Amino acid sequence: MAKQISDLKLGILGGGQLGRMIIQEAINYNVTTLVLDPDADAPCKHICNHFTTGSISDYDSVYNFGKKADIITIEIEKVNIEALEQLEKEGKLVFPQARVIRLIQDKGIQKQFFKENDIPTAPFQLVSNKRELVNPNFPFPYMLKQRKDGYDGKGVMKINNIADIDNAFDSPSLIEELVDFEKEVAIIVARNSNGEMKTFPMVEMEFNAEANLVEFLISPSTYPDDLQHKAEEIAKNVALALNITGILAVEMFITKNGDILVNELAPRPHNSGHQTIEGNFVSQFEQHLRAIYNLPLGDTRSRSNAVMINLLGEKGHEGVAVYEGLEKIMAIEGVYVHLYGKKYTKPFRKMGHVTIVDQNREQAIEKANLVKDTLKVIS
Amino acid sequence: MAKQISDLKLGILGGGQLGRMIIQEAINYNVTTLVLDPDADAPCKHICNHFTTGSISDYDSVYNFGKKADIITIEIEKVNIEALEQLEKEGKLVFPQARVIRLIQDKGIQKQFFKENDIPTAPFQLVSNKRELVNPNFPFPYMLKQRKDGYDGKGVMKINNIADIDNAFDSPSLIEELVDFEKEVAIIVARNSNGEMKTFPMVEMEFNAEANLVEFLISPSTYPDDLQHKAEEIAKNVALALNITGILAVEMFITKNGDILVNELAPRPHNSGHQTIEGNFVSQFEQHLRAIYNLPLGDTRSRSNAVMINLLGEKGHEGVAVYEGLEKIMAIEGVYVHLYGKKYTKPFRKMGHVTIVDQNREQAIEKANLVKDTLKVIS
Repeated sequence: MAKQISDLKLGILGGGQLGRMIIQEAINYNVTTLVLDPDADAPCKHICNHFTTGSISDYDSVYNFGKKADIITIEIEKVNIEALEQLEKEGKLVFPQARVIRLIQDKGIQKQFFKENDIPTAPFQLVSNKRELVNPNFPFPYMLKQRKDGYDGKGVMKINNIADIDNAFDSPSLIEELVDFEKEVAIIVARNSNGEMKTFPMVEMEFNAEANLVEFLISPSTYPDDLQHKAEEIAKNVALALNITGILAVEMFITKNGDILVNELAPRPHNSGHQTIEGNFVSQFEQHLRAIYNLPLGDTRSRSNAVMINLLGEKGHEGVAVYEGLEKIMAIEGVYVHLYGKKYTKPFRKMGHVTIVDQNREQAIEKANLVKDTLKVIS
Repeated sequence: MAKQISDLKLGILGGGQLGRMIIQEAINYNVTTLVLDPDADAPCKHICNHFTTGSISDYDSVYNFGKKADIITIEIEKVNIEALEQLEKEGKLVFPQARVIRLIQDKGIQKQFFKENDIPTAPFQLVSNKRELVNPNFPFPYMLKQRKDGYDGKGVMKINNIADIDNAFDSPSLIEELVDFEKEVAIIVARNSNGEMKTFPMVEMEFNAEANLVEFLISPSTYPDDLQHKAEEIAKNVALALNITGILAVEMFITKNGDILVNELAPRPHNSGHQTIEGNFVSQFEQHLRAIYNLPLGDTRSRSNAVMINLLGEKGHEGVAVYEGLEKIMAIEGVYVHLYGKKYTKPFRKMGHVTIVDQNREQAIEKANLVKDTLKVIS
């Protein structure tokens, strides 16, 4: 008898909202889920089959956890790669593959990978420390990005002039020419071990400048078909060049003269795909499961226009979370609430998201603005 | 500070697939879920916050469980009513209310309630034992239904002639004139404590005659608007007459001359509403939560045509379940799989369901037939 999906236990490194939403889909397939997270009250805690409190960056902790699973995946890149490599050697399925995570963990190696594989990306230069920032190969202002451990807007800053260098990161970093972009977009591509590959429609992102987090996401994009098609081809080329199994979020800039530049990658479900749960025939979370279990990929088409808003902790509030305005927004048609099971809020903490679906794009955006003004996470 | 949804713990009596699907929606609202079920491996086991193994028909077990929750609901009617009544007296919110469950538990009282409230229903007669079946008020053949404990097609039989009475139930029952119906349909109505009330569009059911279970469900119905409107009014009238809080499935017959007769009620999420998860803007499970938490009811409109198939254990198979053909049906567009987390299959056991959405109704039905022929639960 061939192995079936429910015979293969899924181990997830990280028990946050991405893991939670993977599990919400896994439930429908009777998949046994094991989760490792250092926080004993992580969002996955109560909905997985087995929860282990432990470090995801420690070799022994990851290795011992991985031994109990058949397929191991991640919801965050900052995991112990050596343990994953060892698990692979011992025959465990690790998707995305350890070498893919290793490559993506280091934004410097990621940029070199783009260059070597003719993936369009902004010009960059690697630097070892902040002394090297004084005489870069390109003029101020430029972006400074730490090669490792950047996450949710952390580890990125704009260097406007010499004076800014005083406060700059003093670790291996890369500097990047400032891209005069019109819009930041993303395409999520999925690939299974059989080589089947599918892209979700392009989405457009609006950032909260203060938190440097995606605040607002519109699906699908209204860029012309030929541009979207070109971007899909780029996303597929990245997935192919990585030879990845799983899903891959490809964040891109559309420049003012219509060029497409790949910004960065996430080899896992991503914030730019949350709206797929209600907005598309298959969600990014189920698609990831289908990919890593080597099952046929789902139908990525949009069912409707969808706008996604991240629900961030309000500034000035820290403590047990209260969702002010929740009842009001639940009265609006086409509004879907996803709270992440986090007891405590703090400024800009991702506490949940809301997706609005509407056949009319403008109306979806209008409702999203209403939701944004009404729903607040306070303490 | 007003109580918010996540402050009120939800206790669910019964840990089967209906409870499981309620929890799948509750996760998005950070609702803490407690479940009571006699089966230590019930479908809800791993996805709720607290699972208690225990009887749902025993007073102490239900009472002690209920004390730990703030809102208590059911996923099956066969629960200990006295304990629920005591919990209500002590200030717990029990939805549907204990008196509603009591009424619906007894098909005889249910029929009398229809009569007293001018709800159209087939003529019937109460009988105390099988001796009374010999001289009924109406001719053979007729339907014989046990007043209590009927479930999933059990407790119902057709009496064709005097000879059948030998094998008839010998318990308080009702007999009912055989309805020459064209179709069995259902409407799910929801009502919150504020009195807000909404109906889902009418669905049409196809039965598996052998198992007497819903095998195939088509949403929405194609009956003329005026008939559907009339049926919606009947469903609302039933909910109003019951003064129910929660959702109520109203199963009805459409007779060959276009009359609508209420068959029976279920004061909980129901098999005839599973397709709402993907087919409608709000699902019956979320709607039930909204109703019992006294929140604004969701948008019940269809997003698409949807066909639902119950996935029943194949005849001749008993043991650890294997889902033959799963991979094949996952390759069909618009197919959604819901497995219920049951390890063991047996003939006609409800192991899961599959919903097919398609803008084209005929195509949805065609795909449903393909799924039905392809996906088998064997051992």
